[in-house]
Amino acid sequence: MSKKKKIYKPRPISGFPEWLPETRRVEQAWFDHIRKTFESYGFCNIETPSVEELDAINAKGGDGGADVDKEVYVIERLHKEDGDKEARLALHFDQTVPLARYTAQHFNDLVFPFKRYQIQRVWRGERPQAGRFREFYQCDIDVINVDSLPLHFDAEMPAIMWEILSSLPGMENEKIQIRISNRKILMGYIESLGIEDITQVTRWIDKLDKMSSADIEKELLKIGLEQTQINQILILSLIKAKSSEELIERTSPITSESKLMKEGIEELSFVMDQLAHLPEGAVVADLSIVRGLDYYTGTVYETVFTDDPNYGSICSGGRYDDLAGNYINKHLPGVGISLGFSRLFDRIRTKENLPNLGISPAKFLIIAENEDQIKDATQTAHTLRQAGHSVETWHRAENKLKRPLAYAEKKGIRYIWLLPNDVRKTHEIKDMVERTQEPTTIEEWTKK
Amino acid sequence: MSKKKKIYKPRPISGFPEWLPETRRVEQAWFDHIRKTFESYGFCNIETPSVEELDAINAKGGDGGADVDKEVYVIERLHKEDGDKEARLALHFDQTVPLARYTAQHFNDLVFPFKRYQIQRVWRGERPQAGRFREFYQCDIDVINVDSLPLHFDAEMPAIMWEILSSLPGMENEKIQIRISNRKILMGYIESLGIEDITQVTRWIDKLDKMSSADIEKELLKIGLEQTQINQILILSLIKAKSSEELIERTSPITSESKLMKEGIEELSFVMDQLAHLPEGAVVADLSIVRGLDYYTGTVYETVFTDDPNYGSICSGGRYDDLAGNYINKHLPGVGISLGFSRLFDRIRTKENLPNLGISPAKFLIIAENEDQIKDATQTAHTLRQAGHSVETWHRAENKLKRPLAYAEKKGIRYIWLLPNDVRKTHEIKDMVERTQEPTTIEEWTKK
Repeated sequence: MSKKKKIYKPRPISGFPEWLPETRRVEQAWFDHIRKTFESYGFCNIETPSVEELDAINAKGGDGGADVDKEVYVIERLHKEDGDKEARLALHFDQTVPLARYTAQHFNDLVFPFKRYQIQRVWRGERPQAGRFREFYQCDIDVINVDSLPLHFDAEMPAIMWEILSSLPGMENEKIQIRISNRKILMGYIESLGIEDITQVTRWIDKLDKMSSADIEKELLKIGLEQTQINQILILSLIKAKSSEELIERTSPITSESKLMKEGIEELSFVMDQLAHLPEGAVVADLSIVRGLDYYTGTVYETVFTDDPNYGSICSGGRYDDLAGNYINKHLPGVGISLGFSRLFDRIRTKENLPNLGISPAKFLIIAENEDQIKDATQTAHTLRQAGHSVETWHRAENKLKRPLAYAEKKGIRYIWLLPNDVRKTHEIKDMVERTQEPTTIEEWTKK
Repeated sequence: MSKKKKIYKPRPISGFPEWLPETRRVEQAWFDHIRKTFESYGFCNIETPSVEELDAINAKGGDGGADVDKEVYVIERLHKEDGDKEARLALHFDQTVPLARYTAQHFNDLVFPFKRYQIQRVWRGERPQAGRFREFYQCDIDVINVDSLPLHFDAEMPAIMWEILSSLPGMENEKIQIRISNRKILMGYIESLGIEDITQVTRWIDKLDKMSSADIEKELLKIGLEQTQINQILILSLIKAKSSEELIERTSPITSESKLMKEGIEELSFVMDQLAHLPEGAVVADLSIVRGLDYYTGTVYETVFTDDPNYGSICSGGRYDDLAGNYINKHLPGVGISLGFSRLFDRIRTKENLPNLGISPAKFLIIAENEDQIKDATQTAHTLRQAGHSVETWHRAENKLKRPLAYAEKKGIRYIWLLPNDVRKTHEIKDMVERTQEPTTIEEWTKK
């Protein structure tokens, strides 16, 4: 330490979160829980590379549509040799474009319906701002089938996400709600009113949770809609229903010739019926839900904190009639939902609601009090590990317990294991939580 | 499907591997096994962002030294606004540089000895070639302490990796060996011979497993060593020993005044002693092991397939006297070892030795044979899931079993669950492996 070194003082990189071990431990518990739930419904896992060819991304709009283009990160070798003719690569900004590309590329090797989950980082080069990440995790489930896909899956998606969201540790006091619609309803209705540019209208309806109806009315007048049309559209859009019965009751006064709208109401009713077992308020039909993306063609989902809807949707998705049409000449309908993991986790973290799981995964810290005990310590650790326990051995013989105890305390290791010696005739265990010290045997912890 | 679409046919990206679901399932099992083993020794997990500031990477040579520089990938927003003054970011090419930066940055919040494992993707823009990946997983464990770090950990690292490598499913027939040295031995000895540029010499000794001694002799003559010096160095370097006793016996005829060399032999003996419980041949002291990296200062490891040493090391590491010295004005010695996961996994995959775990994580496929049974199917699935089983419900009522059976067969779902109906008075289970069909009860699968 005598010579003067040049120090490069590291600093956090805005938008690229990094946790301390104790926080990462909870994050792992969340991922484990999510994975277990996805798998309990028979979803298999895939991972795709972090990059896609830029041309493949451009072939597909993906989540966020035109806006995302600006946010794409390209990667490049720092020292390219001249004459490199490699395709340009970009970090993926969602898991839907990679899924579409994957399904097309491996079409002949997949079993349909293809039910997959994917938990990976995605990247978006947004301007840095609070609560916005440039690198973050998404947890996606999607089902894709050839030619047609049963509506059963449209109901399974939000049911799985509800199960997860209502049971993640730290979410106990959060009130969340999944809002579901079917785009056929609003689009069929608008079309039946003789309006040609449907997307122009739905873009404003989509903002009903953030803007007042009066302001949206003004915008719709500006793009040339008549007042009657606007009134009719707003009446439909503002319908919310807790059950299929309520949905049918509230939509029945609205007369329309649209077959598409009728189909949408039937589909949404079916989905609501399938979700009837969830607690009241968990799921609501909300006809203002559009989701900005062009490729959704039926069911759409979003999920909000009911006491803070402005936080935005933490779990969204929907059905697309033809997912991979840009990559393969097959008709592949799909339905999927994506949990914005990092935003949700960071919210609970910021509210200091994450559980304390300690730093170390170890349950036991075994201490050799002299050199002669080291072999016994190693053997005891080995036996306990074989029985599935997580065990640290203190890294040197130490006859004063002060330092190892302080270490166990700080790392959250519950039990200190002391080996037999001349005075102590049996193994003993010190419980750091109960503040007890009692004789024990290895068998006690290894018997089935 | 009538209108003609423009198709962008996707293709694999060289160096960025992607697996089918059945292969990914084994990869997950490997990761689970590795994580469980790391945690059973009390290592906590961290993840760092995929990127580091380019300046932070340049401050530290890291794994691979000068060569790596060329392989660094930088990332950039596709459409940067003018005037962006953000720091340049690069994808990390190992987990050692991020660990050093992390430890310095969070120094005050960490508990030492800091034992962490890290399982993440890293990126290297190498020229594409067989068996070389540009995006791949590494599994690292490191221990870092303040001021001094007990030698105990130098032995723990290879013991943990041996436990993993000898028990990963698919590795049953692989013969692997961990080769250990201590750089103090060779460096102290070379220094005591009056040679100034030690690194020039060790660079060639490091190639003893790939080149003949005769060729290395020629190279050492070229850089100005005398024949006697070369003979002496080669005699030492070619020493291999299965135990500390053998190591001491074989090095004792070599006389040297070097205190550093003596220290190295003592340290290596201690480590070999601590590993004496491993099967014969699992670990060998091999004084030719140098590892190319400047920052190793003591123990060094590499791991080879004994029947194919040219495949190169799949698990390497060592001790560094001062890990994070470029980032913080503290003395932080560490020892670590890194498993080249993707290269190992791909080798076993290519040899077709991976176990077949099926595609789906589901154990049961429940079939409703008519609409009336759908509620029963959902409820049965729910109850089985609550008991920890993974269950798919077939996505529609289906009175012919042909399609669901074919699906279960292809996806590797073992049990088909049939619900009671007018004819069948109890639940029944069809075992796709045993080819049996027998009555069952929900209780049978849910009791503890």
